[in-house]
Amino acid sequence: MILALGLSRRAQFSGPQPIGELMRLALARPDLISLAAGFVDQESLPVSETRRAIDTLLADPDRARLALQYGTNAGYLALRETVLARFLAADGQQASPPPSVEQVILTAGSNQLLHLLGEVLLDPGDLVLCAAPSYFVFLGMLQSLAARSVGVAIDEQGMIPAALEEELARRQKAGELGRVKAIYLTSYFDNPSTVTLSLERRAQIIEIANRWSRESKIYVIDDAAYRELRYAGDDLPSLRSFDRAGDTVVVAETFSKSFSPGIRVGWGILPPALVAPISSLKANIDFGSPHLNQRLMAAVLEQGLFEPHVAELRANYRAKLAAMLRAMDDFLAGIPGVCWHTPQGGLYVWLQLPEGMDAGPAGTLMHHALAEGVLYVPGEYCYPAEGEPLRVDRIRLSFGVESAQNIRRGIEALARAIRHAG
Amino acid sequence: MILALGLSRRAQFSGPQPIGELMRLALARPDLISLAAGFVDQESLPVSETRRAIDTLLADPDRARLALQYGTNAGYLALRETVLARFLAADGQQASPPPSVEQVILTAGSNQLLHLLGEVLLDPGDLVLCAAPSYFVFLGMLQSLAARSVGVAIDEQGMIPAALEEELARRQKAGELGRVKAIYLTSYFDNPSTVTLSLERRAQIIEIANRWSRESKIYVIDDAAYRELRYAGDDLPSLRSFDRAGDTVVVAETFSKSFSPGIRVGWGILPPALVAPISSLKANIDFGSPHLNQRLMAAVLEQGLFEPHVAELRANYRAKLAAMLRAMDDFLAGIPGVCWHTPQGGLYVWLQLPEGMDAGPAGTLMHHALAEGVLYVPGEYCYPAEGEPLRVDRIRLSFGVESAQNIRRGIEALARAIRHAG
Repeated sequence: MILALGLSRRAQFSGPQPIGELMRLALARPDLISLAAGFVDQESLPVSETRRAIDTLLADPDRARLALQYGTNAGYLALRETVLARFLAADGQQASPPPSVEQVILTAGSNQLLHLLGEVLLDPGDLVLCAAPSYFVFLGMLQSLAARSVGVAIDEQGMIPAALEEELARRQKAGELGRVKAIYLTSYFDNPSTVTLSLERRAQIIEIANRWSRESKIYVIDDAAYRELRYAGDDLPSLRSFDRAGDTVVVAETFSKSFSPGIRVGWGILPPALVAPISSLKANIDFGSPHLNQRLMAAVLEQGLFEPHVAELRANYRAKLAAMLRAMDDFLAGIPGVCWHTPQGGLYVWLQLPEGMDAGPAGTLMHHALAEGVLYVPGEYCYPAEGEPLRVDRIRLSFGVESAQNIRRGIEALARAIRHAG
Repeated sequence: MILALGLSRRAQFSGPQPIGELMRLALARPDLISLAAGFVDQESLPVSETRRAIDTLLADPDRARLALQYGTNAGYLALRETVLARFLAADGQQASPPPSVEQVILTAGSNQLLHLLGEVLLDPGDLVLCAAPSYFVFLGMLQSLAARSVGVAIDEQGMIPAALEEELARRQKAGELGRVKAIYLTSYFDNPSTVTLSLERRAQIIEIANRWSRESKIYVIDDAAYRELRYAGDDLPSLRSFDRAGDTVVVAETFSKSFSPGIRVGWGILPPALVAPISSLKANIDFGSPHLNQRLMAAVLEQGLFEPHVAELRANYRAKLAAMLRAMDDFLAGIPGVCWHTPQGGLYVWLQLPEGMDAGPAGTLMHHALAEGVLYVPGEYCYPAEGEPLRVDRIRLSFGVESAQNIRRGIEALARAIRHAG
């Protein structure tokens, strides 16, 4: 059948994203309160900022025409310079050598960079060590390459260095160390676990990656999509700032969460050895992401429209997170076995249910939650294929989309569902 | 070295696009008249149209927020419906069954669709039969997958059916028929050969593809990027309209050439069997192309801004093509062995040089052309890796970017270079 359709092996590896099923559910039942969607808050999207930036961009016909023409493969130079300068300023300092603008590439969202990285690093059967749980779209991308995701245990400080070392030792014993190509981390407010990798562990993880790069280089992919969305505590220097030789960390960031996912401009900082392979692949795939969007984001930054917007966004999400946590205190704290970690940023709360409760798509909790009118993301979608075992008794709750009032109603409904399911 | 860098096999297949070298040359020498660039005409880019559409899109805050939010994996439904309706209207009729909107997918340029197709159809070593010459970015993409491009001879009516059959028979004899996954055609004003596949051959090529789909399905990829840019003659029905079962032709189109490459919205019509594989892969790669751009193009079409713009564009390119052909008559017609086919549309003229003249990047013609201040695309970049042999004595000239006056000066300079090189 597959042969008769002329499909590649890859087409068979690539399963649909499980989240698609949830999205269909949400569309079919608009009455549901969705604590599932990873969308950003609708009301705080930057309408006036975008209008001002695009007005400026299109006001001068010559400048407008440049934005409407093809751009370059690596992306608009002025924006690459700006994101690099902002990155260096945020970190305060970088291990020498600091990255140069030649190492910066613009992509259609950070997901495109993650995909390009997968292509240039991974052959079928290669391994990526990931936090367990991890971002499910990244895990799906690995599966589509027939690469293997391996879960490493986390705690409130992020990936546990000792667990990482143990996994590497296990792979060495199994003769697979040369297949370990990367460690994937969402180092700020991880999706879905919400934990931030601690300062001390940042240095340790780089050191471990370098020490174990014996048979093959092990890169550290730092998905920093949520870095701007901090509501408490101080920013931490990035993993890149601990990368002494500058040859280990790949930074993947995006303006999708901090400004607009509809504009969808992401960017990466690459180790020198990956610049040519990533650029060549991108040249063969799209020879540059949409240029108008890059010029638009450059105008947003240039006109000083970004920082005030992110400040507003933080205030807005801070209030919505507080609403969710308050509702959780009111409705969930009394249920035995239910607990959570208070996030300092991001868009999610990661909820631990009574041990063994099946929160999967066909499980008892989903059944009761839908009956009560609330939707969540089953935690099992977020576990790597190997390593640290999958937990069915975890769920991801998003406070991004719904209003504070709906968040409260949603948590109340969820509490009823958990009691029924228990 | 490669192993030590931890790169995938694919990273080694993927060479840089040869055109990159030309672009660096053009940037380093802004005095050069570039008859090389595949960019669209700068002056006719739709500034006022884009401004009007985006003003409308952003005027209503609710509508604006929708455009700034994530879209869907397949793309904005209203735009998918519009492009499908326009496609069906352009063809006049379709072989039954006509495609449904579920078979329409929006991509970041048609290149992204070509890439997704490559991924879901081709394993390393698989074959795609292409016109010789063909679009070089597509050939580079095939190489990055370690797939093999096989050139099939063309004449003024496009790919020669008898040559296609011969190639298929050869592959069958070699036990490789099951590896032939697709036939790639730019059926309107091919890049670079400028020929349009004749009506009769459209039906023949579909029939051949179906008849030879014995060991594996052979798809026909119709890259129709230039269809809107016709300056003479009547539009022809698409290959899809001859696809009786609707299971063979993939249509790849884009608004990049007909409206704006900076907005970069492309679209595809897929045979039913490819909808799920392409959708799944896209879901794992970017879960949808930039949504703002899709809403913007929808607004452009909805407000009736597209057709008048394309009409203007056609008038503009028609005049520039006429300027190029006039200059060629004046300066090139007298050189023995130099000839060309008069295109009815597109952005290029394909020039045949005196037999055996080396027009390659290190050849004698390039040397003289640069000395005379003009840049072209060496034809050798455009030949598939196997099959019909590469010709060094062909070049691609673009009338897209330069003014009519510069086109004339460029052709005059090229004539001097050819005489010197001869």
